[in-house]
Amino acid sequence: MTNKYVYNFNEGKKEMKSLLGGKGANLAEMTNLDLPVPPGFTITTEACNRFYEENEKIWVELHEEIKKHLKDLEQRLGKSFSDEDNPLLVSVRSGAVTSMPGMMDTILNLGLNDISVKGLAKSTGNERFAYDSYRRFIQMFSDVAMEIPKVRFDNLLDDMKEKKNTELDTDLTKEDLKKLVEQYKEVYSEEIGEEFPQEPVKQLELAIEAVFKSWNNPRARVYRKINNISHKLGTAVNVQSMVFGNMGETSGTGVAFTRNPATGENKLFGEYLINAQGEDVVAGIRTPQEISHLEVSMSDVFEEFKNITRKLEEHYKDMQDIEFTIENKKLYILQTRTGKRTAQAAINIAVDLVKEEVIEKEEAVLRIEPNTLNQLLHPTFEQKALENAELLSKGLAASPGAASGRIYFNAHDVVEAKARGEMCILVRQETSPEDIEGMVSAEGILTSRGGMTSHAAVVARGMGKCCVAGCSEIRVSEEKKEIRVKDFVLKEGEYISLDGSTGNVYKGNINKVQPKLSGNFGEFMEWVDEIRTMSVRTNADTPKDANQALEFGAEGIGLCRTEHMFFDEKRIPSVRKMILSTTEEERKNALAELLPFQREDFLGLYKVMKEKPVTVRLLDPPLHEFLPTKKEDIESLAKAMNIDYENIMDRIEELDEVNPMLGHRGCRLAVTYPEIYKMQVRAIIEAAIEVKQNGFKDIKPEIMIPLVGHIEELKYVKGQIIEEIEAVFKEKEIEVDYMIGTMIEIPRAAITADEIATEAEFFSFGTNDLTQMGFGFSRDDAGKFLDEYVNKEILERDPFQAIDRKGVGKLMEIAVEGGKSTRENIKLGICGEHGGEPSSVEFCYELGLQYVSCSPFRVPIAKLAAAQAVVKNI
Amino acid sequence: MTNKYVYNFNEGKKEMKSLLGGKGANLAEMTNLDLPVPPGFTITTEACNRFYEENEKIWVELHEEIKKHLKDLEQRLGKSFSDEDNPLLVSVRSGAVTSMPGMMDTILNLGLNDISVKGLAKSTGNERFAYDSYRRFIQMFSDVAMEIPKVRFDNLLDDMKEKKNTELDTDLTKEDLKKLVEQYKEVYSEEIGEEFPQEPVKQLELAIEAVFKSWNNPRARVYRKINNISHKLGTAVNVQSMVFGNMGETSGTGVAFTRNPATGENKLFGEYLINAQGEDVVAGIRTPQEISHLEVSMSDVFEEFKNITRKLEEHYKDMQDIEFTIENKKLYILQTRTGKRTAQAAINIAVDLVKEEVIEKEEAVLRIEPNTLNQLLHPTFEQKALENAELLSKGLAASPGAASGRIYFNAHDVVEAKARGEMCILVRQETSPEDIEGMVSAEGILTSRGGMTSHAAVVARGMGKCCVAGCSEIRVSEEKKEIRVKDFVLKEGEYISLDGSTGNVYKGNINKVQPKLSGNFGEFMEWVDEIRTMSVRTNADTPKDANQALEFGAEGIGLCRTEHMFFDEKRIPSVRKMILSTTEEERKNALAELLPFQREDFLGLYKVMKEKPVTVRLLDPPLHEFLPTKKEDIESLAKAMNIDYENIMDRIEELDEVNPMLGHRGCRLAVTYPEIYKMQVRAIIEAAIEVKQNGFKDIKPEIMIPLVGHIEELKYVKGQIIEEIEAVFKEKEIEVDYMIGTMIEIPRAAITADEIATEAEFFSFGTNDLTQMGFGFSRDDAGKFLDEYVNKEILERDPFQAIDRKGVGKLMEIAVEGGKSTRENIKLGICGEHGGEPSSVEFCYELGLQYVSCSPFRVPIAKLAAAQAVVKNI
Repeated sequence: MTNKYVYNFNEGKKEMKSLLGGKGANLAEMTNLDLPVPPGFTITTEACNRFYEENEKIWVELHEEIKKHLKDLEQRLGKSFSDEDNPLLVSVRSGAVTSMPGMMDTILNLGLNDISVKGLAKSTGNERFAYDSYRRFIQMFSDVAMEIPKVRFDNLLDDMKEKKNTELDTDLTKEDLKKLVEQYKEVYSEEIGEEFPQEPVKQLELAIEAVFKSWNNPRARVYRKINNISHKLGTAVNVQSMVFGNMGETSGTGVAFTRNPATGENKLFGEYLINAQGEDVVAGIRTPQEISHLEVSMSDVFEEFKNITRKLEEHYKDMQDIEFTIENKKLYILQTRTGKRTAQAAINIAVDLVKEEVIEKEEAVLRIEPNTLNQLLHPTFEQKALENAELLSKGLAASPGAASGRIYFNAHDVVEAKARGEMCILVRQETSPEDIEGMVSAEGILTSRGGMTSHAAVVARGMGKCCVAGCSEIRVSEEKKEIRVKDFVLKEGEYISLDGSTGNVYKGNINKVQPKLSGNFGEFMEWVDEIRTMSVRTNADTPKDANQALEFGAEGIGLCRTEHMFFDEKRIPSVRKMILSTTEEERKNALAELLPFQREDFLGLYKVMKEKPVTVRLLDPPLHEFLPTKKEDIESLAKAMNIDYENIMDRIEELDEVNPMLGHRGCRLAVTYPEIYKMQVRAIIEAAIEVKQNGFKDIKPEIMIPLVGHIEELKYVKGQIIEEIEAVFKEKEIEVDYMIGTMIEIPRAAITADEIATEAEFFSFGTNDLTQMGFGFSRDDAGKFLDEYVNKEILERDPFQAIDRKGVGKLMEIAVEGGKSTRENIKLGICGEHGGEPSSVEFCYELGLQYVSCSPFRVPIAKLAAAQAVVKNI
Repeated sequence: MTNKYVYNFNEGKKEMKSLLGGKGANLAEMTNLDLPVPPGFTITTEACNRFYEENEKIWVELHEEIKKHLKDLEQRLGKSFSDEDNPLLVSVRSGAVTSMPGMMDTILNLGLNDISVKGLAKSTGNERFAYDSYRRFIQMFSDVAMEIPKVRFDNLLDDMKEKKNTELDTDLTKEDLKKLVEQYKEVYSEEIGEEFPQEPVKQLELAIEAVFKSWNNPRARVYRKINNISHKLGTAVNVQSMVFGNMGETSGTGVAFTRNPATGENKLFGEYLINAQGEDVVAGIRTPQEISHLEVSMSDVFEEFKNITRKLEEHYKDMQDIEFTIENKKLYILQTRTGKRTAQAAINIAVDLVKEEVIEKEEAVLRIEPNTLNQLLHPTFEQKALENAELLSKGLAASPGAASGRIYFNAHDVVEAKARGEMCILVRQETSPEDIEGMVSAEGILTSRGGMTSHAAVVARGMGKCCVAGCSEIRVSEEKKEIRVKDFVLKEGEYISLDGSTGNVYKGNINKVQPKLSGNFGEFMEWVDEIRTMSVRTNADTPKDANQALEFGAEGIGLCRTEHMFFDEKRIPSVRKMILSTTEEERKNALAELLPFQREDFLGLYKVMKEKPVTVRLLDPPLHEFLPTKKEDIESLAKAMNIDYENIMDRIEELDEVNPMLGHRGCRLAVTYPEIYKMQVRAIIEAAIEVKQNGFKDIKPEIMIPLVGHIEELKYVKGQIIEEIEAVFKEKEIEVDYMIGTMIEIPRAAITADEIATEAEFFSFGTNDLTQMGFGFSRDDAGKFLDEYVNKEILERDPFQAIDRKGVGKLMEIAVEGGKSTRENIKLGICGEHGGEPSSVEFCYELGLQYVSCSPFRVPIAKLAAAQAVVKNI
């Protein structure tokens, strides 16, 4: 840290962003590019941090440094503060390292006092303007720097307008405004106990303190939390001489993008107002004109501006968002920054810039925030429609997209309503595998419980279906078929709308916009594929999902959850028969009924995937998930299966678990009932033999054993499996290649991965469960308090969304090292939900995994993240 | 591995136990001590293992080696096989490294055939005896070596007796026996398709094969599993020349202990039968005589025997169990081994041997299996009474002791029955904190679910109360108030008996024996205390438990579970009010009601513990555990609290969790509701101030924060706590020392222990939860399949009983290293249930922990284990 806390604009450059803030660095850069930037200086972010150390006061040395720079500014401009003819006025603006639009405070026209107001009147030839500016400055300063309630000034203004019997500020005369200035100053001294400061240096210091303090105002803190910005960065303060766009018809102010931020089209895009200040543009009193109109009204200025925008874009090598003011035909550039844009525009701009040879492909790949691809793949709400919508609540953005429909509270009702032609939203406290059909039929899913990896979230993402999960504020009564939230009660059949990309839940039916994929998207993804080194597979259980994923460029299946195949109505009776069997014989018979179904399942997947790798996870959930829970369902099951109701209840009770997550599931089932996995493996291998005989010579199923925690478990189950595979080979008189591997999802498995690799040919990280057990967080329950953890800054991010590198990531690292130490070429992948989350994908790259696997709609996102990881790590 | 597979007795020594087996090594040792051991040789355990590699056949080289040793034996004894005058006969016995009494097979009188039977008749002068021996040998050989059903021979014997119209074998004449021999040989050739082997070498090899095979018979495998003996050790086979105790009134056979195995008294203890073989003693046909009687009947022999026993005890430095035979006034020693003994005898013998200067204190400490101390601390069933008892089932030996009582199915009924003066057993599917009062009133607790660390098990151990948990075979219907097991239905009020040391559950009321602590116990424990370096604390929540633990020598409290204090009927209303509060204010009021109770709790503990360390764990369980679950209880709560029934139901539903183990509990509660811990900490500190003011200058409470997984959690909660402590100091104008530490019970905490130690002054390992999360086993559910895991040898031991060193232990190791790397002198302890399990205590010693903490009744066990760890690691 240096002792220099204030930089003239010509002392900085764009690389000094962390010291000068984004705005300050850009002002410096533009100054050094000889662009017409009103001169000024920047007080650094380090000063902001020291300000907090100094108990939120400006210390002596900083005071001196500021004074010195003010003097310097006066000299350079030939203007001085409190001048009766041509006074110096400045703006004071925050400037964080990362732009936080509208989050912090700004003060304009600082330097106005009882003397300089006259100078301003003289230099602009507009006394009314000068006093209106003074009035506004007092109010802004009082509000921002001194926290005097704005309403006190507004009341005076309203009184004055009432007296003058008008509704418009503009109808007030300069005399009225002079009076208001006096009244405003009185309010100030009443509230503060001091006269309104006439000394510009005093004004400035109070303003600087206010900006520093605004770094920690609640809305700024919330913004940073949402956007993952550290609270420790601090903000810089930019003090810049004022220029005026409101000096008549040869003045004006505006904003322009060097390219179209909605479409990416390479054409200047923007608007301006003649005879106006920036705040007038924001206030929207007059309708601004399109930037192209400037060519007509002031062609020289337009020409100069166009050249400058081109220069800036070339210099920054990206589309710029530029603020400018024209003061008496003189153009000033007030700000430039990289322009925000839609995902579609981002792709088009990046591709165009490569073609224009401005940037390399690698740079283009870095330009797109992977998650924004969601905008390209899913419908979104129409912006206009959204503005009028009633926001009911906000849950977790569990699966992106926008959906509207009538609410129904169980799968059955959704299926029926859909059959009647209705659009439905399935609303549940939480979903379970029994709800699958309802989820398929619904436009979207809303749950009041569960986190980012709850059943609803995982399944919805798999389907590419919009889902808002864990919306705990909403009370769902499945019995009464209604939801209560705030003062609303919504009954079955009423409309709601879900935004799965933000987690917002709205009342009513909101218009949607369908995504369009431009040709540039395809080209961009080709570059992504060229650059990235990790494969991207998909989690898919059906040929339909697999097809969808292939369209998005999936290179294999990393996780086929076989249990999803068990819920089909043709199969569930056999599954239940299997579970309710009391002898191995009965169980084998029930499994024999399932075998042809399972074989067809795998056959379907193999056919779609051609010879791409397919990893099949053997049965994972506890058996009780397959049994009905409601009395009437149990009764009809009893009847159908010709078993005593009591007996079924006994069995259900026996299977019930206190902590099902840590219960009798995964390979533990196979230790107790080896015949289940044997049936599954037989189906996998028989199907593989069939496609091999039909030309897929290289078919090589990857059989994955879940929930292994101990090498002996794996040995035991693998032994059983191989026995069955050998039996199939013998029967069919033909063999196929296959691999046997395991999930690494239990901490003990990670810790003892060296042992486990003696038997496992591949590891696939199940980071959902590894996070659950590593943290001791139940994904179904933690939603309730994880929010609070993030709000209280205990956790930076929900570890179910992004891999917790220090803890869960460390377990992964131990496992990777252990696995490689035993089996040098062990295949390593991830199939947890994190496999589609960009920062987690990057982490997987750093760990040296060969592939990630994610739900179909996340495949492009994962690919982009994988390519970015390569570029970042060059 | 050498190529030598057969050792003459004089080639071995007692240190060669792993090669020669226990019996073989001792026979060798005795041979070399010049004791009168009938000569013979031992086939090694390595031969047994190779036997299995050779597909369970004796290979050529071994065949040759055996033949060579047989020849040698014939030469040494001047006897030969198949001799018509004085034939050599041998016994063939198994001999494992660790004694497995009765588990494997033995064949006597091998070498008898149609010729040698005549020789035996001649040499013994007893033709009837010779043919009876031959008959028995054929049957034994056929049964053991050839697996011919014994019943076929028994039928022939019965036919013969019927024909002779007698019930006694002894009434059969030598002619009858000769006939039987012929019939037996016919059975043999029918069954095997070959003549009965006349060649002794052939007989011997078949017998050796049979003994090797018996190593893997089911009862031997089960025995090894129960006793934690590896299946890989193999058994040796001892071939020894026969001597006969049944050659008339100057012959006999017997067994003696060098000291009394029941009391430890230093006096020869044993019995013998004149004119008998070993099997006659076992059969119990005649009543044996006390060993002292031998002095009267054969004083020379007795004198020799006494000298030999003294010599053997001196040589082995431990009480010996010796088998002997007298053949025509000549004494032979057939076997010596360390004698089994009761815990009481073990202590007395060990102490006596130290006083006799035979062994050192360190050796004495190693002599006692720590778990056997349970016999000294808890009542046991009377052996005789047990023999007639009906065994209903077997569950987990969750808390030692013996208890009988009438069964009741809920806490309320137990309390009422106890008030009527009944002895009760509380029977539940599983217990919950609501059952505490019932557990206090019951003699013992039986549950059908849950493992070694289930609620029932943990609480019962804490109380020193007998408990059998997870007895899954028993179907408990709490509604019908009955249990069903096998064909029995037991109704409320019927008697059962529980053995908490074995897990056995019996029908009816069985007499019990109360333990007696001899003076030697105290002296022994003093040596233990001298030797051990780790402290032993106790887990105790009440002054009563703490007092009990102090009596057993506890050196502090390692875990005070504050939630146990919340269930008292005076407090639970306030607890519930706190939980049902909707505002912080309401919650604070409810907590204020609890504060005086909590203060009294800690005051009570401090007073009992004097200035010994007391670690208080702040509230740990999820809040829903404190709410009622039955409709009527909820209704009465609603009435009592004047809250809507619906509202309470809403709140209960809201608090309900899918996986409570991984839910909103521990320090997570304190993140959401900081005021709960603040109240508890205030109580801890105010109580400490009070005792400090009353003379306990060195009081220093250790405040333990549970369920920390992330450094930021700890920081946050610690910050809240310290704020409250400082407030108390200010109010009271006096300070006390205190420490703040954390449980290490979440894998992530272990992994990031280096970070956590920056804030934690001590770590206490919560190995129950660390095992749950490390393995992904719910302790409430895993009972169902863990048995199978142990049976299928997937796990060596239930990891909730003994620390899994490779996985959970590795996490502990990482945590110890991490903790020390940040805070060199960090205090390290364990308060999980493993803290009282000997092998786990040893592991904690190896890890370098400073203390273990366990339930009061386990304190002596933990102390002994801690001392043994020191001795073993010298």
